Amino acid sequence: MKIKVLKDILSANEQIAERNQRLLDSKRVFALNLMSSPGAGKTSLILETIKRLKGKVRIGVIEGDISSSLDAEKISKEKVPVIQINTGGACHLDANMTSPALDNLPLGEIELLFIENVGNLVCPGEFRLGEHKKVMLLSIPEGDDKPYKYPLMFQIADVVLINKIDLLPHLKFNIESFSKAVKGINQDVEIFPISCTTGQGIEDWVSWVRTNMPLSAPEALA
Amino acid sequence: MKIKVLKDILSANEQIAERNQRLLDSKRVFALNLMSSPGAGKTSLILETIKRLKGKVRIGVIEGDISSSLDAEKISKEKVPVIQINTGGACHLDANMTSPALDNLPLGEIELLFIENVGNLVCPGEFRLGEHKKVMLLSIPEGDDKPYKYPLMFQIADVVLINKIDLLPHLKFNIESFSKAVKGINQDVEIFPISCTTGQGIEDWVSWVRTNMPLSAPEALA
Repeated sequence: MKIKVLKDILSANEQIAERNQRLLDSKRVFALNLMSSPGAGKTSLILETIKRLKGKVRIGVIEGDISSSLDAEKISKEKVPVIQINTGGACHLDANMTSPALDNLPLGEIELLFIENVGNLVCPGEFRLGEHKKVMLLSIPEGDDKPYKYPLMFQIADVVLINKIDLLPHLKFNIESFSKAVKGINQDVEIFPISCTTGQGIEDWVSWVRTNMPLSAPEALA
Repeated sequence: MKIKVLKDILSANEQIAERNQRLLDSKRVFALNLMSSPGAGKTSLILETIKRLKGKVRIGVIEGDISSSLDAEKISKEKVPVIQINTGGACHLDANMTSPALDNLPLGEIELLFIENVGNLVCPGEFRLGEHKKVMLLSIPEGDDKPYKYPLMFQIADVVLINKIDLLPHLKFNIESFSKAVKGINQDVEIFPISCTTGQGIEDWVSWVRTNMPLSAPEALA
């Protein structure tokens, strides 16, 4: 019974996600679903990306949080369109929550859309929102054993960003064995070590974004 | 429909949690439900507590993980009874998963039981397992805005441990404003800043544990 309900929910979600993606495609918006544990640096990554693409790529943001609009306030200071979704308790975004947020964004003026999910290394992995790529952050302080303990998220990610590498001198984290564990469950994933604090590696990430944006936004390749 | 199912699940969980707690009480076991984001330091806290209470308090551990038995292996090196629960995808422990773990532990030989939940700052907060106190860890790298974004966990906690304070010189984290935010949603919570790496504050935590253990375990107060 419990399982059947879950299946129904997931299949209904899949249909709405499909519709969201068609809407995004029709408006030529490239959408990234950003997932991580709480405090791994999703909002900081969005801010760093906005800084580097300002005047080159038109960006929009959907902020997902259980409550508060702290992240949306940070983003709106950068003068990009942002919508805050408060899930009111739910531990992940789903396609149905994303849909009205899309309707409230000026999609015609956006080329790159970040959807920042609720901070959670488990549940967001189960719900497609309509995104083109799934991006996950794992921060150095969380430890290099996480692919073994939370495999789904690493399995479905198109990109894994290892954030907070500026903290490497103070913590035990083996980037090589971490990357090997990730590749072991997801051969095709791309992995970038970055620091939103020092800026290290951010250019590689930004270059990945530009390369993966559809050619229909030619200014993105300028 | 979705809501009704959730209510049914929660009320069934509550009944089993009640039964688990009665079992623990009958065996005079004091149980702590340990919750946090992934990598905040739950296993390290258990290991540090075992070190300090060895020969004084008989400890047992239940390790909850989606997959792997990495944490249980670390604990078992300390020669305390440990059971690993693999949730197989589920993002939290519930009372029904905890029950067979209790049956497989030598409860008669245990005075203090740690139940380490799945790393998740959201869902574990909704499911009582039969514990006597809820302990949550928030680590410095996660940031001091978390009480606003994940209020439930802070609301239900009996103790909040601020872990990894050894990283304070390298990160922005205001302990005072964080503590104020926590107290704002949970007046009675106790807050201890600690570091499992340097040992700072661990004695205060251990002393809280001993003070809260029932008097039926007199050696705990020795």
